[in-house]
Amino acid sequence: MSDPLFERIALIGIGLIGSSIAHNVRAHGLARHIAITTRRQETLTQAETLGLGDSYHLEAAEAVRGADLVILCVPVGICGAITREIADHLEPGAIVSDVGSVKGAVIEQMRPHLPEHVDFVPAHPLAGTEHSGPASGFVELFQNRWCILTPLPETSPEAVERLKAFWEACGSNVETMTSEHHDLVLAIVSHVPHLIAYNIVGTAADLETVTESEVVKFSASGFRDFTRIAASDPTMWRDVFLTNRDAVLEMLTRFSEDLASLQRAIRWGDGDTLFNLFTRTREIRRNVIEAGQDTAKPNFGREPVKGDKPS
Amino acid sequence: MSDPLFERIALIGIGLIGSSIAHNVRAHGLARHIAITTRRQETLTQAETLGLGDSYHLEAAEAVRGADLVILCVPVGICGAITREIADHLEPGAIVSDVGSVKGAVIEQMRPHLPEHVDFVPAHPLAGTEHSGPASGFVELFQNRWCILTPLPETSPEAVERLKAFWEACGSNVETMTSEHHDLVLAIVSHVPHLIAYNIVGTAADLETVTESEVVKFSASGFRDFTRIAASDPTMWRDVFLTNRDAVLEMLTRFSEDLASLQRAIRWGDGDTLFNLFTRTREIRRNVIEAGQDTAKPNFGREPVKGDKPS
Repeated sequence: MSDPLFERIALIGIGLIGSSIAHNVRAHGLARHIAITTRRQETLTQAETLGLGDSYHLEAAEAVRGADLVILCVPVGICGAITREIADHLEPGAIVSDVGSVKGAVIEQMRPHLPEHVDFVPAHPLAGTEHSGPASGFVELFQNRWCILTPLPETSPEAVERLKAFWEACGSNVETMTSEHHDLVLAIVSHVPHLIAYNIVGTAADLETVTESEVVKFSASGFRDFTRIAASDPTMWRDVFLTNRDAVLEMLTRFSEDLASLQRAIRWGDGDTLFNLFTRTREIRRNVIEAGQDTAKPNFGREPVKGDKPS
Repeated sequence: MSDPLFERIALIGIGLIGSSIAHNVRAHGLARHIAITTRRQETLTQAETLGLGDSYHLEAAEAVRGADLVILCVPVGICGAITREIADHLEPGAIVSDVGSVKGAVIEQMRPHLPEHVDFVPAHPLAGTEHSGPASGFVELFQNRWCILTPLPETSPEAVERLKAFWEACGSNVETMTSEHHDLVLAIVSHVPHLIAYNIVGTAADLETVTESEVVKFSASGFRDFTRIAASDPTMWRDVFLTNRDAVLEMLTRFSEDLASLQRAIRWGDGDTLFNLFTRTREIRRNVIEAGQDTAKPNFGREPVKGDKPS
């Protein structure tokens, strides 16, 4: 391996994102050594069986020793506790980063515990699937996806550049913004969409007049798309909503106002309001495809599903 | 062609569903003659260029003459007007059907105009993509999807059986229920999901603090899934909401109640409520996959999208 970006990378947490990073480090030779740490022995053993790293540790403190890049790949809610645990063991000059979907709360939790001799570069790769755990990662996950960095005033520009190079080597496009703006943008493009997907699936499951098996059977008419998002990791998403509370509540209020106005249009038979919105939203889909953020194939290019014939 | 199910099938309207039916009739030899009719010369020419039928008519009355199966494949809102137009030209013994997403309103519009010497079998194939028009149809569209029939008390059982055989030949699973129950089920599995997808895309587009280009750029974090559904045909969906008003308003009220309760949980930091719902919804995703109604592949098995690198 010639000239890797880092000597030793410590991955704290080895779920979908952590394991996808490990695949990338390996595939692109981004570090000489991958140290993996996670709290549960079972998960650690799974990571070892999958051969994701070079060393495996139950103690995060051990994994970060000697690491010049440390990435927390854990639910947002435990970033603070982990930072406290590793703080005294971080190497001078190390870059400490994370992959959390909320940046303000992560900074608030981590920053007070970090020693001055490390560089903290909060990061958020905008990529994922509805699967979780060490076996769900794959090397292409970050390909042509965005990674947002939200450096702090005290973060050195060199550290930002090094982490940018790292994410670009993983296939990402990198953008830098403030944590406040990040949290606002993500509330609308990610957090509220997840919340309403979870919500509609819950509403459907609770009906007395329509059975759950009917909901499942007839889901290809729209509902199934929402069940995918609503299958995302419960712990991760609970923490997202608890820690990006203000931005989520603000966007949710707007969503509900707009929905009430559509409800009124339906009640009063105002077809023009509906038609105008439905035409406008079609245009945004075109922009998403042009921006290379989704496939133009119908139904996401899903293969026809071979299920059982009904009995 | 030996022993086709029908002699002449008239397809009134040749969008996504009409053209997909035409592909099936051709592929499986379900009729000797496919007569296609649509109001706009441009669309009719497109259908002819694509070779979807055997004869092409601007007048629906001409297409239905001699047809033993007539299927209206048009937005729900114009079913009544078309039925008035064709009523006097229908063959005795013909089966008249439709593909509308709402059944109560279609029956209300069509039934009064139909002569007693035809059999009316309202139908709804639960299949579609976000694309529309004669070029968007394909033969696999109905494969392993459900088609719901809502026959009336006066419909002959033989006609129901013949139409059932037709949809099964197109690859569908067929179920029979009342139009009232259909409209309730579809409100929750299809209509409200579409409405909230349209709504979130509209809310996002209207923000002052987040630009539309940011919404598009960062859409892979959840939002892009909703843009697909929100790219569905505006006329068709306007008509769905106007004609299934009561069931949609009922389901929408439940959705909003549930969302308000989630909003409250977020405001008060009630993580358990969130976690419990998110765990429950994951289970429903598993059921959808087991029922063969969606792919188990992550992200719907989308291919990685090759977009432009940002400038």
